[in-house]
Amino acid sequence: MGQVNLSDIYKPVQKDLNKVQQSLEDITDAEFPLLAQLLVYTLKTGGKRVRPMLTLLSGKFYVYEPALLVPMAAAIELLHTATLVHDDIVDNSPVRRGKPTVSRAWGENSALLLGDYLFAKAGSLVASTGNLRAIKLFSETLMTISAGELKQTGVTSGMAKLREYYFAWIGAKTACLFATSTESGAILSQAPEEAIQAIRDYGHNLGMAFQIVDDVLDFVGEEDELGKPVGSDLREGTMTLPTILFAESHPDDELTKSVIGKRDAEGVLQAVERIRNSQAIADCLVLASEFCLKARRAAEKLPDNSARESLIDLAEYIVERRK
Amino acid sequence: MGQVNLSDIYKPVQKDLNKVQQSLEDITDAEFPLLAQLLVYTLKTGGKRVRPMLTLLSGKFYVYEPALLVPMAAAIELLHTATLVHDDIVDNSPVRRGKPTVSRAWGENSALLLGDYLFAKAGSLVASTGNLRAIKLFSETLMTISAGELKQTGVTSGMAKLREYYFAWIGAKTACLFATSTESGAILSQAPEEAIQAIRDYGHNLGMAFQIVDDVLDFVGEEDELGKPVGSDLREGTMTLPTILFAESHPDDELTKSVIGKRDAEGVLQAVERIRNSQAIADCLVLASEFCLKARRAAEKLPDNSARESLIDLAEYIVERRK
Repeated sequence: MGQVNLSDIYKPVQKDLNKVQQSLEDITDAEFPLLAQLLVYTLKTGGKRVRPMLTLLSGKFYVYEPALLVPMAAAIELLHTATLVHDDIVDNSPVRRGKPTVSRAWGENSALLLGDYLFAKAGSLVASTGNLRAIKLFSETLMTISAGELKQTGVTSGMAKLREYYFAWIGAKTACLFATSTESGAILSQAPEEAIQAIRDYGHNLGMAFQIVDDVLDFVGEEDELGKPVGSDLREGTMTLPTILFAESHPDDELTKSVIGKRDAEGVLQAVERIRNSQAIADCLVLASEFCLKARRAAEKLPDNSARESLIDLAEYIVERRK
Repeated sequence: MGQVNLSDIYKPVQKDLNKVQQSLEDITDAEFPLLAQLLVYTLKTGGKRVRPMLTLLSGKFYVYEPALLVPMAAAIELLHTATLVHDDIVDNSPVRRGKPTVSRAWGENSALLLGDYLFAKAGSLVASTGNLRAIKLFSETLMTISAGELKQTGVTSGMAKLREYYFAWIGAKTACLFATSTESGAILSQAPEEAIQAIRDYGHNLGMAFQIVDDVLDFVGEEDELGKPVGSDLREGTMTLPTILFAESHPDDELTKSVIGKRDAEGVLQAVERIRNSQAIADCLVLASEFCLKARRAAEKLPDNSARESLIDLAEYIVERRK
């Protein structure tokens, strides 16, 4: 199996993805300096723009309408950015994409209000598509994401349900927005109902795999590539799949006991090292590959074209990526 | 001029306002206990429901459609609630409506996520009206509110521009949502363009008056009626109109100097007392009355019916109220 090339994946929609980026940069011409500064900081750099790419690719199977898909894709990226800005407050994260988070650099209050502004701007862009189904989908996505995070903050369960909670949690925080990214592209290109469902399934499964790999990279990645220190999740008290699988296979291990339920700086560092070198990492990647296979199967139900090839290659790339 | 009776003002829409309250209470049947608990805490009690009442009254001049107006009015109240929940984080407020704020009782993270959920739920209700103009108006309102708060956090100006900033600030934080409350009612009842503009003007001016009176009550009200300690704004470092007018007429006063630019617990208590007993209070109420007069003039452009009478009476009630 040959190396998948990311620029080939982006190719069918690269031109319109540039327009999405342009429309994000246009937002930074804000009415007063602080807002402009915050918007430039969060929108001009960063991300691989995976979600807007998915929206555009998903619009390539029936009536491709850039005038609707570009604002929708920009809205998806804004919603994603808003949730990151708010998450960094909730998790008290110091660094994101190699830079101080907004809440560290400007304070939590500015970060909170910036996130609200980004939600609103995103809503306004979706409204500009004039498509009520896309608008409803979008509001429901934000409900799912915020309720999911809130549910997570209240979890104090024992080990038995950790895996189940993890999948529900990443379903709400990541896969839901991936599914909305793809579904909205299908809706706005007048896809038939079965195709909308297939594209949505693709997005959901890809999102599950993407988040698992993200959580694995938090253990095995390089700080340079991650843009944040290795082991950040555990340091912030968040149990992700590598930790959960390790704990499941070492139920009586002192390390497991020290990590679950309480925070201990020394213990966390040792835990990161042991989990990094354990079987749990490979087990996580097997689970991620299973989600990618489901995504591929869903994509195969779509008409055969270059966008479908990109979606299929992306499902392969997701588990191979290093950042 | 006789005493205006609040229940008479509500009368033309009381039945449907009960439906709005019911639909807010229905939201509290949430999928998991923490969310349900937070929703009950914020939605089952509280407020006079002024904004949803305005939406319903504003829908009474042309084609009154409760099936659209009730969800719109509920969305307005949810948006209002969401901004209060987030504001209480930003202002670090301990008490709201006689109870601990969500951020004090459950922590800032839960309050942040609850606010996001309420924004999304509000968006979803507006989307259910199927009216694109109302949907766009709603998104833009949230943009104005969050940008306005953000602008406020960055203000470090001298005294010369304080009044100008204050009016811009309450325009964004209060009058904008009042204007959206009334405008959306007009839009959803198929009002002609000139009537939409008149109803919007009414809402804007009423909102300006409402906020000025609110800020006056923070000085002259009783703690029991306010549901929070007297002088809360100044204590939290917020300069509102009474303080600004006092400072304008006492530019060289030591108290003015001690209040502007820095916080000093002792100084703040004395300041509240002196401002409370100064001419600034009466001057504020004159300004509020001017906005109410503009609101009345706008309402008088509308067809003469019992809803118009309510709007006109409300503009009178606003400056007479004690909580």
